[in-house]
Parts: sequence; C-alpha cells; structure tokens
Amino acid sequence: MKPKRILLLGATGSIGTQTIDVIDQHPERFELVGVSAGHQEQKLKEIVDSHPSIQCVGLAKKPEIDFGDVQLFYGEGAMENCIKETEYDLLVNATVGFRGLKPTLASIEKGKDVALANKESLVAGGELVNEALERNGVRLYPIDSEHSAIFQCLQGNSTKEVKRLIITASGGSFRDKNREELKEVSVQEALAHPNWAMGQRITIDSATMVNKAFEVIEAHYLFNVPKEKIGVVLHKQSIVHSMVEYDDHAIMAQLGSADMRLPIQYALTYPERLPLHEKHPLDMLLSRTLDFKAMDEERYPMIKIAYEVIEKKGNLGAIFNGADEEAVQLFLSGKISFLQIEESIVQALLNSAYIEHPTYEQLAKSDQEAREFVKMYWS
Amino acid sequence: MKPKRILLLGATGSIGTQTIDVIDQHPERFELVGVSAGHQEQKLKEIVDSHPSIQCVGLAKKPEIDFGDVQLFYGEGAMENCIKETEYDLLVNATVGFRGLKPTLASIEKGKDVALANKESLVAGGELVNEALERNGVRLYPIDSEHSAIFQCLQGNSTKEVKRLIITASGGSFRDKNREELKEVSVQEALAHPNWAMGQRITIDSATMVNKAFEVIEAHYLFNVPKEKIGVVLHKQSIVHSMVEYDDHAIMAQLGSADMRLPIQYALTYPERLPLHEKHPLDMLLSRTLDFKAMDEERYPMIKIAYEVIEKKGNLGAIFNGADEEAVQLFLSGKISFLQIEESIVQALLNSAYIEHPTYEQLAKSDQEAREFVKMYWS
Repeated sequence: MKPKRILLLGATGSIGTQTIDVIDQHPERFELVGVSAGHQEQKLKEIVDSHPSIQCVGLAKKPEIDFGDVQLFYGEGAMENCIKETEYDLLVNATVGFRGLKPTLASIEKGKDVALANKESLVAGGELVNEALERNGVRLYPIDSEHSAIFQCLQGNSTKEVKRLIITASGGSFRDKNREELKEVSVQEALAHPNWAMGQRITIDSATMVNKAFEVIEAHYLFNVPKEKIGVVLHKQSIVHSMVEYDDHAIMAQLGSADMRLPIQYALTYPERLPLHEKHPLDMLLSRTLDFKAMDEERYPMIKIAYEVIEKKGNLGAIFNGADEEAVQLFLSGKISFLQIEESIVQALLNSAYIEHPTYEQLAKSDQEAREFVKMYWS
Repeated sequence: MKPKRILLLGATGSIGTQTIDVIDQHPERFELVGVSAGHQEQKLKEIVDSHPSIQCVGLAKKPEIDFGDVQLFYGEGAMENCIKETEYDLLVNATVGFRGLKPTLASIEKGKDVALANKESLVAGGELVNEALERNGVRLYPIDSEHSAIFQCLQGNSTKEVKRLIITASGGSFRDKNREELKEVSVQEALAHPNWAMGQRITIDSATMVNKAFEVIEAHYLFNVPKEKIGVVLHKQSIVHSMVEYDDHAIMAQLGSADMRLPIQYALTYPERLPLHEKHPLDMLLSRTLDFKAMDEERYPMIKIAYEVIEKKGNLGAIFNGADEEAVQLFLSGKISFLQIEESIVQALLNSAYIEHPTYEQLAKSDQEAREFVKMYWS
C-alpha cells in the first residue's frame, strides 16, 4: 500500500504537533508532504528538517531563516498556494480561526479530502463547505474529539435512523461557579482547563461554552442533522466523548482518554484503526464514576445562540465567531471581563446586518466587521 | 420487501413474549410462522389464535387443548421437527437450558440464521456450533443485552482491531454483600434482581455471577476473541450494556434502558434499526451517575471458571451448565444454600471425566452426568 500523502496546515500548533506524532508512529502508512504555520518559523524549520518528504512550506510572512530545498510560500494566500502546488491525498486543516475556511474550500475544490480541526470552517462557512463537498464528491473527517466520537458511533449505522446526537461538555474551567461568581474570574483561572491541554483561545472558549456552541453548529453541518436532534449534556470527566441515540433507543458512545491523537489518527486511517501508543490509555476495567448533568441554558447562554445560528444561518456563524475571536483577545489582554465576552457576542449579533446567502467574500467581511464592532464597543 | 418469517422457540417465556411484542410492532416486516413452548399450552394457544400466520406448533408433551389447523409436534424432537417442517428465514431460539443446543444446531444445518437467546448453545456447545456455522455459512445474532451491545459496538469496525471486549455486570441481587453475608441469604432475596425482570434461573445465575461467567464463554465463541481479550467490570446501573476497546484505545459502548426488546429487535432487523416503542427509554441528556467497579474474583469465583472453560474447552462447558441447572433447582426448592450452588459446580467439574472433542451425544451425556452428580452430592 502506498503511504497516504498528508498536507498539514497549522503544523506548529497543538493539533499540528500531535498530527505529526501520529504520522511519525506509522511511517509506512503516512508521508508528510507539506506544512504551514503562522509565525513559529524555527519550530517549522525543525519539522521540515526531520521530514525529508516535505516538498512545500507555507508561512504567514517572509521567513528570516533558510528553508532549503522546498517550495516556499509566504504571506496572503500561502496556504492556498501550498494546496494548489502540492500533490497530496488528505489535507489536515489544524489552523485556528476564520482564516482556516479558505484552505478548506480550496482543498475541496481541488477534489481532495479534508481532516478538519478548524472549527471556523463550519461555524462560519458551513453552507459553503457543504455545497462544495457535494459538488466535488469530497469527504470531510472530523478531528474534534466530540465529532470524531459521533462519527465513530455512526459507523455501521444509517444517519436516517439517528434520533439524537448527544454532545458531551466538560463545562470548562468554571463549571463549578454560578453566574454571579463568573463576574470576578481572572484570565489565569480561565486558562486552567480541568481535562484538556489546549491552545489559549479554545481554553477560554471552553470556559464560556462558546466552544460547545460551535460544536453544536459543526455537528449540524458535519452530520446533516436538524437542530432539534442535537443535544448537549455536561460530563465533567471528559471520558464519554459524545453519543448517538438511534430510533430504537440504542445509544452508542465513544469513550477514551483526553488524548487528541486518537481522533486525529482515526481521521487519517478511517475506516481502519491502527495501534496508538498512549501513555495513559483509558482502562474501563478499573473502578470509576462518570457523571452527567443536564444542560442549564441560563448558566450557559452561548448554547442557545448555537441553535439560533443553525436556524437562521446566513452570515450569523461568521459574526458569532468573529466577535468571539476579538472578545477573547480583549479578555486575554485584560481589557474586558470574562462575562463581557458573552456580551460582545450578543451585541455583535444584534448590531450586524444579516445576509441570507453570503459568498466567501461577504463572510470574510462579516467576520471583519464583527471584530471591528467588538473593538469599538469596548473602546 | 417480503416480511421476514420467524420461527420462535420458547414463545411463552420472558424473551419469547418480548419477541412477539417486537414482531407485532412491525407487522409489515415480520411474520411469525411457528412457535414452541414447554408446558404453558394455554398461553401458547393464545399466541397461535392471535397470529394466523403460524403454521407449526411444538410442545413438550401432548396438549390437552385443540390447536386447530396447524402442524403440531410434541414430545422429544418437537422443536427439531418444527425446524425441519417450517419454511422460515430466522430462528429465534429463546429456550432456556441445555435442550436449546439441539435446535440451534438443527437450524444451522438447515442453513438458516439463528437469533440466539439460549446461552447453553454456546456455553455447552460452542465448538460444535461454530464448526456448524462455518460449514453452513450461517450467521448467529446475539440476543443477550451484553452480546448485542458488543455486536453493535463492532459494527463498522474490524474484529482484527479489537483489543478487548468489556462485559458489564450488574452484580445481581447480592452485589452489596460480602461472602460471609452470602451464607445466610434466602431464595426470595436471591430472586429480587435490582435491574432486570427475568426468569427464575437467570435471576439466580445473576446473583451467583454464573450468568456472567456464561457470558464470558459466549463472547469467546460469538466474536472469536481469545480469553485474554475478554474482561468484566461491575456496573450496578446496567445502563452501559457492554463495550469494545480497539487497538487505538477507542472504547465503543452501547447504552440503553433495561428493555430486552432492543437487543431482540436488533437481532431481527440487523443491520437496520427500526423505531421501538419504549415506555421509559434512556435519556442521556438528564443528570445521572454511572459507576464502574473493578471485578473482584475472590468475591465472584465463578468468573475464574469461565476462563478455565475457555482454556480447556471439551465438555467442561456442558458440565458447568448442567451442574448449575441442577444446583439452582436444588436452591430454589430449599434443599441447598446459596453458596452451595458454587460448591456444586466446582465439585462437578473436579469429579467429571474430561472429553477433549465431544460429539453432541457426549455433551448431552456430560450434561446429564453433571446433574446426577449434583443430585447425589447433596443427597
């Protein structure tokens, strides 16, 4: 069997690094043919040096170090150029933020499957992405642990028989605090996620549950399931990664440790499974307790917004995401309080122009305007 | 689509009655063409009267009431005659005890798939059944909730990638008692299963964990998995019906309420799922706790015996089952104490002649001898 050629965007981030670990565990199965990163050029250089199979490199700006004998793209359009110029079998999109949407669309238009860790591709661009997938006969594999769990629970079953997708939520750093207590929380407290070690933005998004709201929207687009059939339940241990309930009331669940390499590897090897070297795999023969707590939408108002976004579609996902990206930056830099992240999102959605069938350019504009709005709102 | 023609053995028991309920919920999909029962001829007559599609009826002895215009068999070989004379697509074997093995083998030899609730077919006759399945290209569908859960967790995956089957055990009526306390328990206490409403023998077998030991043996034969890859964990809520762990450490689980109609229906509709009308389906969006407790083989010595039976095979499963069937009868009639059920099994296994490759007749003899031994031992 010829190795699967992987083009990896966002190679130096948390998901990118773990993707490389998976690839390196199975050199007979995978070949890393291209990588991109934002600004961590030294780290990217090390990846390139240790993977002679890499032919193409993308960076946000002109690098100061020499990348040697590879095709190098930098600046605006670097990721799309890598997609255009590299021969690959699977794009792993591990970029963070709205900028991940364009390469997702570019790979689909090229007819190449995408393993997707970039949430914004679906939150902001779900309609465009699904249209492009259908038009090009391309498949999307989820890398998020929740969506990978749902994807695994759907195997051997028909989506027609799905009664409900049940997304589990750890509740984030502040799950034991009420809304009154949330007024006073610090950046440092918000960054201490109880279960997962992740990037800064997604850790804050877990605390506000914006991340879970995004996952509800993503599940809608990934699995073509109406909003009435998507539920969220709090599960503080993060062991059940999500569930699917069928028409006969059978509920399938996927359990595992908090190791993102499992969903990454499954997206790369689907429909096969390969051995994965985990230091602390989940052992379900041991004694343990799994807690589930019904969702409280008053405590977590962002979840309600997800259902509104699915209902009204258009550019609302782009506004939701753009406002959040900006608000999280303002919170991290100490300019707004934790609860003002939510306020930013609600106000941005209330004050932006609604576009029912936006083009990519209109989504990019809505994203930009939502960011500007939030900046202005707090200045 | 032509309805699937079902021949149902053990129609008046707990699984039989629920199988008829499933069939009646989907008259466009299923047709009950034959039924058998032991002694409850009045109940069987009602089933025949309400299902004009029934052509064949089997009973343990000559009935006192008139069954009208059906082919009637009674006495020795009644079930095998129904199998021989009825045109059907799927045999549902819901008989209890060693007598269920012969019809399982007969249906396989006829080339007809079997939905199996009769544990003894595999516990006593696993080797014979698997040989017959292979020879005739016939499929076996598990009806037990645990094995149905494992079967569901295997869909869309390869058994080559299985790291471990994890069977959950409620722990039965006496799970909160230590071995000292078990000395004094009554028949009435033993019959009060905390989660499932079932027949008497299986309820006692749950309390001794003989039932769980049988399930370990069945799992070995059903899924062709070596004993090292089968584990048991205590799970008192009986919500996770069992799990499969894969090479990548993903654990798939099936959850549901304690309603046997789900595994019955799945065995009948596989690979499809149909809506099932349940009064109290499991709602995993609600708050709840799931507890798991590591297996204690000192507390539950019958589990160890399962692994020995898998290891040595031969007629040991027949002896294990025969001794248990007799011992449970002695316990129910007040002749031996609860812990003496275990003693009966251990002594029968120690005192019976081992046959490495038994024929059906030799298994039947081992079964009979184990019963005689237990009767003698306590007389």
